[in-house]
Amino acid sequence: MRFVTYEPPAGPPRVGRLDGDTVLDVGFDGDMVAFIEAGAPTGTERPVPGARLLAPLVPRSFRDFLAFEGHLLNAYRNLGREVPAEWYEVPVFYRSMGTTVTGPDTVLPWPSYSAQLDHELELAVVIGRAARDVPAEDWLDVVFGFTIWNDMSARDVQRRELPVGMGPAKAKEWDGSNVLGPCIVTPDEVDLDTLELEVRVNGERWGGDRVSAMHHSFGALVAYASQDQTLLPGEVLGSGTATGGSGLELDRWIQPGDVIEMEAGPIGVLRNTVGIPTAPPTQRKDH
Amino acid sequence: MRFVTYEPPAGPPRVGRLDGDTVLDVGFDGDMVAFIEAGAPTGTERPVPGARLLAPLVPRSFRDFLAFEGHLLNAYRNLGREVPAEWYEVPVFYRSMGTTVTGPDTVLPWPSYSAQLDHELELAVVIGRAARDVPAEDWLDVVFGFTIWNDMSARDVQRRELPVGMGPAKAKEWDGSNVLGPCIVTPDEVDLDTLELEVRVNGERWGGDRVSAMHHSFGALVAYASQDQTLLPGEVLGSGTATGGSGLELDRWIQPGDVIEMEAGPIGVLRNTVGIPTAPPTQRKDH
Repeated sequence: MRFVTYEPPAGPPRVGRLDGDTVLDVGFDGDMVAFIEAGAPTGTERPVPGARLLAPLVPRSFRDFLAFEGHLLNAYRNLGREVPAEWYEVPVFYRSMGTTVTGPDTVLPWPSYSAQLDHELELAVVIGRAARDVPAEDWLDVVFGFTIWNDMSARDVQRRELPVGMGPAKAKEWDGSNVLGPCIVTPDEVDLDTLELEVRVNGERWGGDRVSAMHHSFGALVAYASQDQTLLPGEVLGSGTATGGSGLELDRWIQPGDVIEMEAGPIGVLRNTVGIPTAPPTQRKDH
Repeated sequence: MRFVTYEPPAGPPRVGRLDGDTVLDVGFDGDMVAFIEAGAPTGTERPVPGARLLAPLVPRSFRDFLAFEGHLLNAYRNLGREVPAEWYEVPVFYRSMGTTVTGPDTVLPWPSYSAQLDHELELAVVIGRAARDVPAEDWLDVVFGFTIWNDMSARDVQRRELPVGMGPAKAKEWDGSNVLGPCIVTPDEVDLDTLELEVRVNGERWGGDRVSAMHHSFGALVAYASQDQTLLPGEVLGSGTATGGSGLELDRWIQPGDVIEMEAGPIGVLRNTVGIPTAPPTQRKDH
């Protein structure tokens, strides 16, 4: 099944199910995280013509890994760093805040403090139930579904923040920096062995990869994150950027007004327009 | 005023106010984050004899900075790294999850995957209202109060995770890794110019510093975090470790059963006991 969050004419966002292109309200009073926690109880469904989709959920948390070697080789070269040996052993992640989420068909804010914005193409896992110390081979037992994550990044800021060793801070976090959507697809409708991720800018393919190319599997990511720690329904774990899934790897940079499309099999296309900087680059202090 | 969260005989945790050592229930139905959001509405107060304190809040989020140069000089030397020039310019932070919080007088879980546990002595700011693009000089306008944060850290894990450049992941996050308390003190009762932080292990002073020694001021931290991003009531921002506030700096390491006390003026003493590893070190895979 494919679940969405949509904006009703009045009241808080509601949970829907996609039937083809039609949004069916599932008859649940509460947001997607509550719906997942409740065990996805679909009641009487009714079509919602012209429903505007929002981010499929406001995650309880974001954990973002780095699982594609191809991305890493490209990105570290352009950041002027070697891929550290530790990467091959440890599925490291950083965190971001659910409150920064935005959804499909929005204009992505260009942060006032950056002159070099970039996209990141990722597959995201939405946790379905509370679980701790999950064995890697049992990871699908705790998954509600999959969605696309465009992890927008301010590369000039990342270059300044990286040397301190605390990971990305404002480089990956502002209101609207984390884009999810268009829907959450349950695992029974996703074949990870063949699933491909692709990003297009203004209709041109910039990059992509097969999910099966991940050096660290989703099982390894879930197992690592859940060591001695409880994962909760509505938490989101990202694969890290697919090979070629960022402009950093190509030294090619998105511009205001560009249309970014990310596609992943049955999840569909996550489409957004790059916003206009609030101050011209020459007036921004980062120059 | 000094606010706490306590465990009532039945029902969810409740908000109290400290009058000397006495906990007064403030007559609010809801948790500390809801209390802060509601504008801290104290109703009819009643004493709660023998109240057991919990973490003063379950933060919406943790942001942890690195503001004390003394800590950094000591810590980086022992991690085998130079203090990067960027640190002096950029108040970088990493994030942690509110769900990992624990409070005063608990036994701190020793993570099964680490053989080298450490404490970190920090002052934490609790955000009091939604705010974005906060000028550094106005930072106190968005603060509800201050508490102590013991940011427990698995140093062996941190050494493995650090080279990847994503910051600490499992090095600083497991159930019970973030200790807050014993209370939240409102800004009118805290003099940051003279406030001192101290950590003691089994009664012996291991380190501490004046808050006024911070290289990056709290104003700078709040301004940086809130650039293009909304801070919300109940979010927590940490100062980073005070000079001498970790064993890493001294190459001195806490052991199971040790009592850690962190003190900060009117906030009082945050006291915890170090737990026993769930597996003997020789059986843990990190060895």
